[in-house]
Amino acid sequence: MYTLHYAPDNASLIIRLVLDGAGIPYRTALVDRRTRQQDGPAYRALNPTGLIPTLETPVGPISETGAILLWLTDTHKLGPGPADPDRPAFLKWLFFLSNTAHADLRTIFYPHQYAPADAHAAHHEIMSARMLRHFGLLDSAAGTHPALFAAGRPLGVYAVVLTRWAALYPVDGPRWLDLADYPTLAALARAQEARVETPVVARAEGLGPHPFTNPEQPNPPEGSVL
Amino acid sequence: MYTLHYAPDNASLIIRLVLDGAGIPYRTALVDRRTRQQDGPAYRALNPTGLIPTLETPVGPISETGAILLWLTDTHKLGPGPADPDRPAFLKWLFFLSNTAHADLRTIFYPHQYAPADAHAAHHEIMSARMLRHFGLLDSAAGTHPALFAAGRPLGVYAVVLTRWAALYPVDGPRWLDLADYPTLAALARAQEARVETPVVARAEGLGPHPFTNPEQPNPPEGSVL
Repeated sequence: MYTLHYAPDNASLIIRLVLDGAGIPYRTALVDRRTRQQDGPAYRALNPTGLIPTLETPVGPISETGAILLWLTDTHKLGPGPADPDRPAFLKWLFFLSNTAHADLRTIFYPHQYAPADAHAAHHEIMSARMLRHFGLLDSAAGTHPALFAAGRPLGVYAVVLTRWAALYPVDGPRWLDLADYPTLAALARAQEARVETPVVARAEGLGPHPFTNPEQPNPPEGSVL
Repeated sequence: MYTLHYAPDNASLIIRLVLDGAGIPYRTALVDRRTRQQDGPAYRALNPTGLIPTLETPVGPISETGAILLWLTDTHKLGPGPADPDRPAFLKWLFFLSNTAHADLRTIFYPHQYAPADAHAAHHEIMSARMLRHFGLLDSAAGTHPALFAAGRPLGVYAVVLTRWAALYPVDGPRWLDLADYPTLAALARAQEARVETPVVARAEGLGPHPFTNPEQPNPPEGSVL
């Protein structure tokens, strides 16, 4: 049995949707961000970098969203295996989601970690323009590789959760993403929302009735987003 | 036979050292950055995101440094396979190298892509401080997992090449990394330099006699770094 260390609407959401989408049993352990539990010794022993999520597995803890997705893909056959001819494209877009799209989006959520205070507005402008280009590449890739980017599957879930966050965070920031500009990603948002696990996960994390097609600020029953 | 699309001292260097370190045959195809060949239609057909490297394989092109390393690891048994108990740690640190260390270091090399012109100095200060923390985590991880971070192997090569670039780029930037502060990474630099493939690759890309323990500006026999 897996244990997913999570906080609502954090990157753990991606793992949760994939686990529930594949019917893989797990339990959750809340990481309380209000008390900065992710910086405490217990959590740092599981994940030295302190980021959420960590998945405890029978062979030890694994962290980094992309690493967990890959491990689950190989362990539960959720995508192309090492010898599959679709493996190169699967790995390419998984790393792009992780090291380019997710990494750049993170700087928009936490500008104080990346930019001087008097440059936050300019930083937001530069990084959101980058993100729009990344979403364009992902929209095109999802059209070229529909099976890899299917709703419920690792790349599809990762891409659609990034569009949710881009629409919502930071809470006080300007809005800059219109999902209608990316028809394949918009269709993916509808498909992900139509899946049976989505309302279950949305209730557990307080994400509202339309977490991908019309995201609203979360109201989680436990824990906190920040 | 693989074809590695490369430019000197670009991220293709990581793949080249791993291929030569494992004795895997390949040929190289120079991507001429002076003519922005990476933005031309031929290269973009191989890699829609335009970054270097791309590795052409019998099942198609694969790009993203981390994706190529993972694909080579699984295809040539260069590290723990999907069912290996060391796989979680291997994947965690591979993604950390890619989405945190490499991603942040890239913003130091290309500040104009990430920060407004009047904030480049502050951006450099913030990002280099982040990088020093990342190198601290990598130094510790390499000490905990010496087999995973061995010289010549994917994680070891990736980490040591990042230390080289941190010492060199941007050419006109302040110096901020003292490798002696990270004893495990410093030992890794010595071990990588002592391997037989290192001078071969260093000559091919003009990296000088001590590319990791005492890096100097490259003088490549073909192509250009930027």
